Amino acid sequence: MQTSTINLAEKFGKFTEHWSPRVVAEMNDYQFKVVKFKGDFVWHDHKDTDEVFLVVKGSMGIELRDGMVHLSEGEMYVVPKGVEHKPFAESECHVLLIEPRGIVNTGDEGGELKAENDIWI
Amino acid sequence: MQTSTINLAEKFGKFTEHWSPRVVAEMNDYQFKVVKFKGDFVWHDHKDTDEVFLVVKGSMGIELRDGMVHLSEGEMYVVPKGVEHKPFAESECHVLLIEPRGIVNTGDEGGELKAENDIWI
Repeated sequence: MQTSTINLAEKFGKFTEHWSPRVVAEMNDYQFKVVKFKGDFVWHDHKDTDEVFLVVKGSMGIELRDGMVHLSEGEMYVVPKGVEHKPFAESECHVLLIEPRGIVNTGDEGGELKAENDIWI
Repeated sequence: MQTSTINLAEKFGKFTEHWSPRVVAEMNDYQFKVVKFKGDFVWHDHKDTDEVFLVVKGSMGIELRDGMVHLSEGEMYVVPKGVEHKPFAESECHVLLIEPRGIVNTGDEGGELKAENDIWI
């Protein structure tokens, strides 16, 4: 039995790249990923799944086509499936993402911010 | 579009009962629940699903048949499906639970700590 816990701050201390999610845990076919946001991401959606953003440190925003979400430390937001969104952060923000295994950060958009998937830390 | 965020501290401020999970969000067919632990829970398992514990405030433990897990603020642990566990907390601990919709807190064990399911806050 694996009895080691996952310390989020420790995981965030292990990398510096922005917009590059690292998997820290799996629950059934879902993954928990730590990611550092800074600057502007790209507009994208995930056709088949909701996506959860939970802010562990700092603050961030999510642009939607018809609104804007602001998230501070200890706040979470569920982007519904199929909804276009563009995350951004003025200063570096530490985020826990929760979504099904196999989800690519840029959806179908690709581009230079597309991260390699399923990288564990 | 729902653009309101979920503030975990605010949700925890809305109830005082221990071992009584409240749903704060859904992602596909999974739920995020806030719960306050204090004292000892009952031994139980969830036959069909993993279960995630993420400590938002305080500290807690999870007894396993062959080990013990200690969780502090900012730490998480995945109890694999079918694994018997008994959560406990010496002082009140605020926990975010993540698991599929429909999971009962006591598994099949029931008893006086069995909470009503799917209560939103």
